[in-house]
Amino acid sequence: MILPALLTSAGFNIVICVGFFSLYSILRKQPVNLKVYFGQRLAQLKPEQKNYYFGQRLVPSAGWLVKAWEASDDDIYRCGGIDGLVFIKMIVFSIRIFSVASVLCIFIVLPVNLFGQAIQERDAEAQMDMFTIRNVQAGSKGLWAHFFALYVVSISAYILLYVEFKSVARLRLEQVIRFPTKPSHFTVLVRGIPWCPGEAYSETVSKHFGSYYESSYLAHQMVYRSGTIQRLMMDAEKMYNVLKETTIPEGESEGPSAGVVVEEAVEGATNAIQAITPEPETHHKNPHKKDGKEECAAAFVFFRTRYAAMVASKTIQSYDPMLWVIDFAPEPHDVYWANLCVPYRLLWIRKTLVFMGTVVFSVWFLLPTTLVQGLVNLDQLEDHFPFFRNLSETYANIVSGYLPSLVLTCFVLIVPPIMLMFATLEGTVSRSSRKKSACCKCIIFFFWNIFFYNLFTGTWWDRMGKLTVTGLKDMATLVGSLIPGQAPFFMTYIMTTGWASLAYELMQPFVLIINWIYQFVLLRKEGYGDLYTFPYHTEVPRALLFGLLGFTYCILSPLILPFLLVYYFFAYFVYRNQLLNVYITRYNTNGSYWPIAHNAAIFSLITMQAVASIIFGMKDFVTASTLAFVLIIFTALFNLYCRHKFLPLFN
Amino acid sequence: MILPALLTSAGFNIVICVGFFSLYSILRKQPVNLKVYFGQRLAQLKPEQKNYYFGQRLVPSAGWLVKAWEASDDDIYRCGGIDGLVFIKMIVFSIRIFSVASVLCIFIVLPVNLFGQAIQERDAEAQMDMFTIRNVQAGSKGLWAHFFALYVVSISAYILLYVEFKSVARLRLEQVIRFPTKPSHFTVLVRGIPWCPGEAYSETVSKHFGSYYESSYLAHQMVYRSGTIQRLMMDAEKMYNVLKETTIPEGESEGPSAGVVVEEAVEGATNAIQAITPEPETHHKNPHKKDGKEECAAAFVFFRTRYAAMVASKTIQSYDPMLWVIDFAPEPHDVYWANLCVPYRLLWIRKTLVFMGTVVFSVWFLLPTTLVQGLVNLDQLEDHFPFFRNLSETYANIVSGYLPSLVLTCFVLIVPPIMLMFATLEGTVSRSSRKKSACCKCIIFFFWNIFFYNLFTGTWWDRMGKLTVTGLKDMATLVGSLIPGQAPFFMTYIMTTGWASLAYELMQPFVLIINWIYQFVLLRKEGYGDLYTFPYHTEVPRALLFGLLGFTYCILSPLILPFLLVYYFFAYFVYRNQLLNVYITRYNTNGSYWPIAHNAAIFSLITMQAVASIIFGMKDFVTASTLAFVLIIFTALFNLYCRHKFLPLFN
Repeated sequence: MILPALLTSAGFNIVICVGFFSLYSILRKQPVNLKVYFGQRLAQLKPEQKNYYFGQRLVPSAGWLVKAWEASDDDIYRCGGIDGLVFIKMIVFSIRIFSVASVLCIFIVLPVNLFGQAIQERDAEAQMDMFTIRNVQAGSKGLWAHFFALYVVSISAYILLYVEFKSVARLRLEQVIRFPTKPSHFTVLVRGIPWCPGEAYSETVSKHFGSYYESSYLAHQMVYRSGTIQRLMMDAEKMYNVLKETTIPEGESEGPSAGVVVEEAVEGATNAIQAITPEPETHHKNPHKKDGKEECAAAFVFFRTRYAAMVASKTIQSYDPMLWVIDFAPEPHDVYWANLCVPYRLLWIRKTLVFMGTVVFSVWFLLPTTLVQGLVNLDQLEDHFPFFRNLSETYANIVSGYLPSLVLTCFVLIVPPIMLMFATLEGTVSRSSRKKSACCKCIIFFFWNIFFYNLFTGTWWDRMGKLTVTGLKDMATLVGSLIPGQAPFFMTYIMTTGWASLAYELMQPFVLIINWIYQFVLLRKEGYGDLYTFPYHTEVPRALLFGLLGFTYCILSPLILPFLLVYYFFAYFVYRNQLLNVYITRYNTNGSYWPIAHNAAIFSLITMQAVASIIFGMKDFVTASTLAFVLIIFTALFNLYCRHKFLPLFN
Repeated sequence: MILPALLTSAGFNIVICVGFFSLYSILRKQPVNLKVYFGQRLAQLKPEQKNYYFGQRLVPSAGWLVKAWEASDDDIYRCGGIDGLVFIKMIVFSIRIFSVASVLCIFIVLPVNLFGQAIQERDAEAQMDMFTIRNVQAGSKGLWAHFFALYVVSISAYILLYVEFKSVARLRLEQVIRFPTKPSHFTVLVRGIPWCPGEAYSETVSKHFGSYYESSYLAHQMVYRSGTIQRLMMDAEKMYNVLKETTIPEGESEGPSAGVVVEEAVEGATNAIQAITPEPETHHKNPHKKDGKEECAAAFVFFRTRYAAMVASKTIQSYDPMLWVIDFAPEPHDVYWANLCVPYRLLWIRKTLVFMGTVVFSVWFLLPTTLVQGLVNLDQLEDHFPFFRNLSETYANIVSGYLPSLVLTCFVLIVPPIMLMFATLEGTVSRSSRKKSACCKCIIFFFWNIFFYNLFTGTWWDRMGKLTVTGLKDMATLVGSLIPGQAPFFMTYIMTTGWASLAYELMQPFVLIINWIYQFVLLRKEGYGDLYTFPYHTEVPRALLFGLLGFTYCILSPLILPFLLVYYFFAYFVYRNQLLNVYITRYNTNGSYWPIAHNAAIFSLITMQAVASIIFGMKDFVTASTLAFVLIIFTALFNLYCRHKFLPLFN
């Protein structure tokens, strides 16, 4: 890629972003969009929208930026819970570490690169390479600058990671003091209740806990099957009964929605028995049915004391560990009802299938990534497919500068929903752990499929024709010499995916348009606007992926850092604004996203140090190469220390 | 290696083993060796030795074999605990599966190999290859025999593994019923007690548990520092006090041995305070000293109820998870006192260092393994070092047939003690977990350093000069074509290490000679004979390594199976005899060795299936190759199922 292509791309994106940000500041002032942009405030019953004059309403303003800036950590905590605060901490960590890196790399490393004179030809292709470590001659004293930057960035990262991990751990502990007794502390979720012929699950549960936990067992609540198919089947059964014996009244024909089942059952459990629709014989034949709803082999059991709940959840209840599986129950809002009925015996099969599905999906995804790399290396494509040559210069710039990242962005958009689907299929019982699991899957997917695969296909296109790798050393040389060459592609990627995604996040175009359709086409005055929880599984992986890019490239090609810092600064404002105004918090993981972010940061650090070690080795700078390798070991030790010191608090 | 070399080796070993076994049957009848061969019976106060006539005493007999055969599982359980029984189960599993394999492979696969006619040249070198799959022509219908054997062996292994895992899990559960209340159920081990200035650890502990576990806290017992150096330092301090102020009496000058410290302290804790030797000022200055013994930051805390002990051990006590670390205490005999005083903060560093040490040791060990492979491939060595050519034919047979395995055996002898040392340095607090950790380390070491490295150096010597591997396919071909060639080496290895180790185990030559020296040279009538616990860390890895060899080679080179079966049959008798008569059981892991054996068996199965898949592929038998690959997936699923079904019972 050449400089004009990069500038084209930057120009496009800056215009788009500024446009969207201004548009947002106008749209948020319109009363019709209240439900779209202030869901959180509406939920808290304090919509804060002022009455703007009509003229004021059409002028872009920066008021939301100021408000996002002024909000304190406590405000964020009130609106977004610990998880929201942790997410903001991730952004702040990135801003801090990449500010340090920017100062070092742009003022020390970049001049060394520019005046390196290793690249003699001055053609358009080499323009971008002038800014990278490629331009530094082998054995040059200038490499000490890179080495110095590497050490300073690494050590700053250690300090910041340690401080942040400690503060998140403290937040988690404060949570315990703030909410000393939550319902979930007294409740366990029992799965794999054994099936006794002629006995309802409910009886089995009360017998078991009544005899083994006599003094502390309070009550239990069965879980009832209530999927769409189940509802349809129930309706069909009722219809059949109606048709067979027309004397029986139809009763409630619409099954309750999943979330309401339990509350409803608690309220009306006793008096509902009289109103059973099916005949007594059916009831007698199948004791696992009650109220026409089928019991699952799962129940919530309530205890008098927290200790009893803990002891029950930590002891094995039966000779078969797949029966009477007891865990602490999730918080009421956190329960993922649809998965409670999954038989515990099938969970491991589901997990295995999901694992295999994820692998297949990742392999299938190599297709678009390869396509994208083909577009980046347009000149090589031109040699193979002559019709590309007819493109004019401007179009070529657009194609090679903007289109590849856009294609990748579109394909990447479908990844988080698919991963969330996989996480659902795994059978997690809580919404928060489902989102966390999807988040982890997305991170691995992004790191592998976007970062590494783009690196290697990039190098692969460059080496077209000379595919043989004759040894480990050749492999290292290959990797080391071509990683810096991918810097421009990742710069555009940060702009298209990073900046644009922030604009998209802020604008919420999808909800906005539906809202308009509701209000102006369907003429429903209340408008449309659902209450969403923050999409951690989309946003956390993206922020961490950019962190990986930043760490890897900060000393190789410092020009990437300004783009990254712009992203993180805007992310800071946008996400604070969204947490304060848009998203609601119905459940959270109590900061469990931080260990994930920590691991990703450690992985990024190790990648940075390994690449640096290889490149120092290639440039005949053996001392630095060895010392960079020592740094890898030190990073691993640091990670071990943090795991021992803080991780027990997160389990 | 050629057939005569193998036969030489077999001859040597048979003579040695028969000699040793007969010698043992004589030696065990001599009253002077009672302490060597009947430690277990002496400990149980029922020495069962009959009074033999002098003539009878000098005639070899098979009585011990009969007794070992007749002993029931209950006898083994009484003498060796669950672990002893589990170890015998491992041997029985091996006998069963390799009996099935023998019948199949020797009657179906071996004839196919012999009449395969892929190897045309009839020289000495090719003699052994006649018995392997190498002799089967590509695309031959005879490969269906191998395929059939592969499937039958795999499925039998699944069934047997499942049954055994289930029975071991049941044993563990029965243990719970048999011993409903053990002291360890009411006791927790507290480490990382925070240091409060001016306060003894003991006071800190009683304050903490007295306030947070008021109703259930019973008492606690501090752990005192009592290593050799500590004892010397204490003695020196006392001597110094004696010399400084001669008026003060010396008191008890010899520190108590580690095991006695606690009992002693419990008995005399109160009245000992009056008898403190150091002056009051010293006592005042350092509150962590008592009785001249320094307190460690570790204590045993006793509770009134099991639930309280459990709750304490499962909850986090402090904002810093490295303080107040609570685990269930090991059984009294199981405690490894020397490690209790290791500061908990240093444990992760120790573990990391031990990990690195193990890796370094494993790499260093490649030296003898390479040497051994040099001896096996003597003819290649002869080309490089001409003086080897002067060896006569017989010597050459001995060198290439017997010496390599002997060299390897000697080197391997030092591995278990070193691994035990590593496990000690790791800082485990119980003897049983120390031995288990050493056992795992040894298994990984054996599998990697003996099996895989011998395979690859073997192939490496064969390919001397053509080292370049040009791709994944070439690598597979290389591995697949040369693994069968290593069969003779492993056959000798089974004889020298396997058979000989059984003879060594039975004879206990080391203890025997020391006993004789005590009785006949030092003229001490009571003789010498310490009470040993069973060396699981030596014997389990060996039995599992032979299992790996058996699985890998059973369909490639079925001739290995008779050697293996002989080993396992004798192992059955020898180990039963040793468990019944020699070793005592002071602690055990409640069958935790079975999951290790299960994992090793799964690993062996997967190795067998992968090698078979590669070799079928090479022989142009694509259907079987694919189906063998399917079998790998099935093995992985089976393993997952077993882990979910049984493993929770082992934690």
